[in-house]
Amino acid sequence: MNGDRDSQKQAQPTRTMRREVGPRVPRVPAGDNRERLVCPECSFIEYANPKVVVGAVVRWDDRIVLCRRAIPPRRGFWTIPAGYLELNETAPAGALREVWEEAEARVELDGLIAVYNIPRLSQVQLIFRARLLDGKFGAGPESEATELFAWGDIPWNELAFPSTRWALNHYREIGEAAGFATRTNPAGETGDY
Amino acid sequence: MNGDRDSQKQAQPTRTMRREVGPRVPRVPAGDNRERLVCPECSFIEYANPKVVVGAVVRWDDRIVLCRRAIPPRRGFWTIPAGYLELNETAPAGALREVWEEAEARVELDGLIAVYNIPRLSQVQLIFRARLLDGKFGAGPESEATELFAWGDIPWNELAFPSTRWALNHYREIGEAAGFATRTNPAGETGDY
Repeated sequence: MNGDRDSQKQAQPTRTMRREVGPRVPRVPAGDNRERLVCPECSFIEYANPKVVVGAVVRWDDRIVLCRRAIPPRRGFWTIPAGYLELNETAPAGALREVWEEAEARVELDGLIAVYNIPRLSQVQLIFRARLLDGKFGAGPESEATELFAWGDIPWNELAFPSTRWALNHYREIGEAAGFATRTNPAGETGDY
Repeated sequence: MNGDRDSQKQAQPTRTMRREVGPRVPRVPAGDNRERLVCPECSFIEYANPKVVVGAVVRWDDRIVLCRRAIPPRRGFWTIPAGYLELNETAPAGALREVWEEAEARVELDGLIAVYNIPRLSQVQLIFRARLLDGKFGAGPESEATELFAWGDIPWNELAFPSTRWALNHYREIGEAAGFATRTNPAGETGDY
């Protein structure tokens, strides 16, 4: 994730957001069927769409890599390494990059655990299963700490996001299976809390 | 898809795009590690990220719904109904909406066939398996025609996009299986052609 982006609140317009610059006047463009934000100074139309978050449940033997967030939101809480997919990047490449940036770990991916929808945040999250290549990891600039946790030691009450918990539980269900069905949000869970 | 958006070429900045308004000057914002487009008039920073395309392979008995595109790109070619996910929409809800807008069909979704990456276009495509609820369909405003095709009658040489072909072939592999592994790009296929 990019902390500066989050603090500027410019990434994703919402009903409660108040921009002082750029596209900010709602209008339905010609040929369209919904409101977009338009810049009153320069007439630029912003086609804002959901963002893709890519991340991984990374394991080493029977332990799982978690990072304690050094930045808002949920600073001090634990998460799997994950962040926004960048332009011209595939989802697997983005997941490898985020694992490197946040956990300073090199991994191989071996399957897509889940596709989660968080409509409140306009996010689609793609969470891969991964394995450390060499057992090495560290705390990147957006992490206060990175640690390996045995399943029984996972700090369930200090996880950063609902989808952190979903991904860990879905990984637990899937385990080391070679082929498996990609999961989605657990029944009734929308991330709206 | 939104034709007007495509024709304005404002949705997704690329190296070859030349904007005359809005965020268009590349600069690395404070706290970031890559260039973003900034508006020289108002200093607005655009965090552009890949877009999510949602669509469905829709079947009725042993035939598949295809739409002939009425808008660029690939006007006159056949595609599965698909388009950009909108803000605050889940991927399944977006797929249902696109099937309605392009094929005027009501469907139920029963599984995620594939997650395709098209890094050249900064797209992640989520393609669901779906079934017509009542056998009814039509041509929405972005379609010249909508038809049901038996497998042997699919116009392979007139498909709109490589991922149209991938999705049809992946659906064929999966068939009516109740549980299946979500597919990704066929080996060696990146959509770069």
